Amino acid sequence: MTQFVCCAGSTATAAIDGISAAGADPEAMVHTPGADAEILVYGRPVRSPVVPVSPTGCPTPAVVTRAVREHLGFDCTIVDAGLAEPTGAPTVHVGASPGKDIRERDPVPSAPGCFAAAREFGRAIPDDELFLAETVPGGTTTALGVLTALGEAELLAPSGGVSSSLPENPLELKRRVVAEALEASSLAPGDCAGDPPRAIRRCGDPVLAVVAGIAAGALEADTAVTLAGGTQLVAAAAALRHGGYEGSLRLATTSFVADDPSIDLDAAASALDLSVTVSDPGFSDGHPATAPYLAGEAKEGVGMGGALALADRTGVPMAAVRETLRAIYDDLLAERELQT
Amino acid sequence: MTQFVCCAGSTATAAIDGISAAGADPEAMVHTPGADAEILVYGRPVRSPVVPVSPTGCPTPAVVTRAVREHLGFDCTIVDAGLAEPTGAPTVHVGASPGKDIRERDPVPSAPGCFAAAREFGRAIPDDELFLAETVPGGTTTALGVLTALGEAELLAPSGGVSSSLPENPLELKRRVVAEALEASSLAPGDCAGDPPRAIRRCGDPVLAVVAGIAAGALEADTAVTLAGGTQLVAAAAALRHGGYEGSLRLATTSFVADDPSIDLDAAASALDLSVTVSDPGFSDGHPATAPYLAGEAKEGVGMGGALALADRTGVPMAAVRETLRAIYDDLLAERELQT
Repeated sequence: MTQFVCCAGSTATAAIDGISAAGADPEAMVHTPGADAEILVYGRPVRSPVVPVSPTGCPTPAVVTRAVREHLGFDCTIVDAGLAEPTGAPTVHVGASPGKDIRERDPVPSAPGCFAAAREFGRAIPDDELFLAETVPGGTTTALGVLTALGEAELLAPSGGVSSSLPENPLELKRRVVAEALEASSLAPGDCAGDPPRAIRRCGDPVLAVVAGIAAGALEADTAVTLAGGTQLVAAAAALRHGGYEGSLRLATTSFVADDPSIDLDAAASALDLSVTVSDPGFSDGHPATAPYLAGEAKEGVGMGGALALADRTGVPMAAVRETLRAIYDDLLAERELQT
Repeated sequence: MTQFVCCAGSTATAAIDGISAAGADPEAMVHTPGADAEILVYGRPVRSPVVPVSPTGCPTPAVVTRAVREHLGFDCTIVDAGLAEPTGAPTVHVGASPGKDIRERDPVPSAPGCFAAAREFGRAIPDDELFLAETVPGGTTTALGVLTALGEAELLAPSGGVSSSLPENPLELKRRVVAEALEASSLAPGDCAGDPPRAIRRCGDPVLAVVAGIAAGALEADTAVTLAGGTQLVAAAAALRHGGYEGSLRLATTSFVADDPSIDLDAAASALDLSVTVSDPGFSDGHPATAPYLAGEAKEGVGMGGALALADRTGVPMAAVRETLRAIYDDLLAERELQT
């Protein structure tokens, strides 16, 4: 059986003005991971007081993953990887707390502990196959932090870079935040090479600690692991390589990440010996739920690329996925009407 | 879609010598609900250090519910209704804490709060249909406590009674414990009529508070609710009636409960206007996983009767369910070998 595990958490780094698009505004953003988890599990927000749709109307990628799940019915487990607000979704606990702003000295003190607990959990998951996803606003910035601390800042872009949930990637801002993070932790780039839990503790977020831990444990148990996501899952792959894992690694992501001009995914894949599956959901239908993705919003998250790969593998046509996601989107908007 | 919700929790009442069979010994018993949740979600224990098989080899009913789930793939949500030990299963949180021994004065102080939170959750579950199950060792004794406090001690048996997970129902012991519980809370039988959260707080367990709360909320939202279980779900139905719910109520249970000579399920069903579905899994195959049920062990729990009703409705033959549960049982025993 396939187990789809989504690690949902938070970092105060997301509250830095201009960093993330994951939520209508900073106040709503803190609820996004919990709402994403609810959408994945129940099809719509259940307890979270927000509807994760951006100001331009771009729905959270959770809607796409949920749409695929409605077709395939795969098992889906949410891990609390540092949620700052309660969620109505059932969550597995591995001791994660919300991450602080990485410009503070020790933003993720729980990283080594929850890496270890997540590894135990990953080792114990009995399924043959694991898809591993994330939802954490601000996560590409903390991923850049971790990559930089590991000495891999240039992995995704020659001058140091990551992808973004915004059409205009605020890369200069991200680099500045990461530079301050390293400074706050008295680190130079590469100082955490070979020690991913330390890199994540000093410059990352709890979600990366949990994702890397689960992946490490599952790989030890010979479970087939697909890292389902973009930048953050590439950072998780880098963490696994720095942790000494030399076996094969798979990444499944969207065409929006693969085509992002900010990054060179092929170069990263080749450097990390990562086998990549890219899925294009065919969002050229001009629908308000999908058009923002063509304009560069969201791009990936909540395992969207992995879910699309599962749909493709099982023979579910993308047209059917699109139809379902439009229905979920309409429900979300109706929900938002009721709230306002 | 059908949502299967299992409320997993604990009461120190279970540690009273001779009260419950839900676990090999009292030390193991405290892990049973978490292990049941893991079996339901993953097919085997993942984090819980026990294998819930009784000394005679009787497996937890979770094995049966999981077997049906492997055929039908229904969504399954675990609610933490006062777990005393961590579980590797994802859980929804409604503020429940482990219940104390009901012979103490205020054994479930969180009952009103988690009834309210569970009700909100039940109202928000978007599925059309809800099956509501429980796992809590000692739960029939606390159910008798709640029934007595509501003035319904005679609901299931003319002289006051409930079913049991033991072949020899320790009814005298249960009645004595309940009498002490009422005394500790300065209550006479019936003193909590019309006030189920108070009855549960003084003489019950957190699982009943959560089950009754979710059911109340879901019914308010016009979700079709099936109470999946025996005595405890009958107590939940009584709580709903005492809370003023006058609509139709459904119960799905096993033939082992329906045929239990300690109780008269038909009389209770008629008194509560409860529509009952009884499923017989045909456990006459002489297999060690099923034979103890014929001898009166376990009988019900973890929504076994509800799962069997779902299997029947969907046309999954009982023979197929039995085959699957034997495979799960063999895995459990192999797991236990590894532990010892």
